[in-house]
Amino acid sequence: MPEMKKGTNYTAAHLGKWEDLKDYKMEEPVKARGKAFLNDLLDLNSMEVSINSFPPHTSVPFHHKHGENEELYIFVKGKGQFQVDEDVFDIEEGSVVRVAPTGVRIFRNNSDENLYFICVQAKENSLQHNNISDGIVVEKPVEW
Amino acid sequence: MPEMKKGTNYTAAHLGKWEDLKDYKMEEPVKARGKAFLNDLLDLNSMEVSINSFPPHTSVPFHHKHGENEELYIFVKGKGQFQVDEDVFDIEEGSVVRVAPTGVRIFRNNSDENLYFICVQAKENSLQHNNISDGIVVEKPVEW
Repeated sequence: MPEMKKGTNYTAAHLGKWEDLKDYKMEEPVKARGKAFLNDLLDLNSMEVSINSFPPHTSVPFHHKHGENEELYIFVKGKGQFQVDEDVFDIEEGSVVRVAPTGVRIFRNNSDENLYFICVQAKENSLQHNNISDGIVVEKPVEW
Repeated sequence: MPEMKKGTNYTAAHLGKWEDLKDYKMEEPVKARGKAFLNDLLDLNSMEVSINSFPPHTSVPFHHKHGENEELYIFVKGKGQFQVDEDVFDIEEGSVVRVAPTGVRIFRNNSDENLYFICVQAKENSLQHNNISDGIVVEKPVEW
């Protein structure tokens, strides 16, 4: 269990370094290692997020799609390949991929190093205000 | 403009390495460097996401809150401090922070290295199915 900090308006956790992610495990519905889910951990209610370490020369063992959630993959470190429907393309540090719910997706790490990535999903068409229109500056001195 | 790839069900972009993020600029409503927004770039419609490089010994110059979006910060590399309302805590590689819309937030990089982070926002209470219940396995051979 990671170190936690919580207040009225926030929940924070410290997962550890990227190379420590291997110690996080998913048990259901399939066993997987190197996967930390944030939704339950942080009480998120608008998105599900996983922080992932994916071992060398490994593929997700199945293709999948989604019911109603848009998915975003952010590749943080390492190299691999991603497939959506019939298109296959290389991904690496700095690659970002949006997949619509009906896109049939899979990816693999075809390199000798770990592939680290973040996967975010949220309900398709749910965003009404983007960063700039939703943010409100608060008049309060910056004291540090 | 990053290298792009697009199909019926996806949009992918390659932003480059973390240290190349300094070349991305925001012009409106305030000028900022080292900030790549993904919503318009990838045609996202459920979330706004920024990928950020934040320089040493720098603070966000103002506190802010949100109208209706929950915000998640994922710290990828480096060290700093985060404040929500009256609570101040350290953040570093592997720290993740959920902030409710009304939380008054600010952060700083008080170290000698760049602070790299991802900020995601999505509409509060919009998620109805999480990762496991929304995913659908597709019967299709894994061919690589």
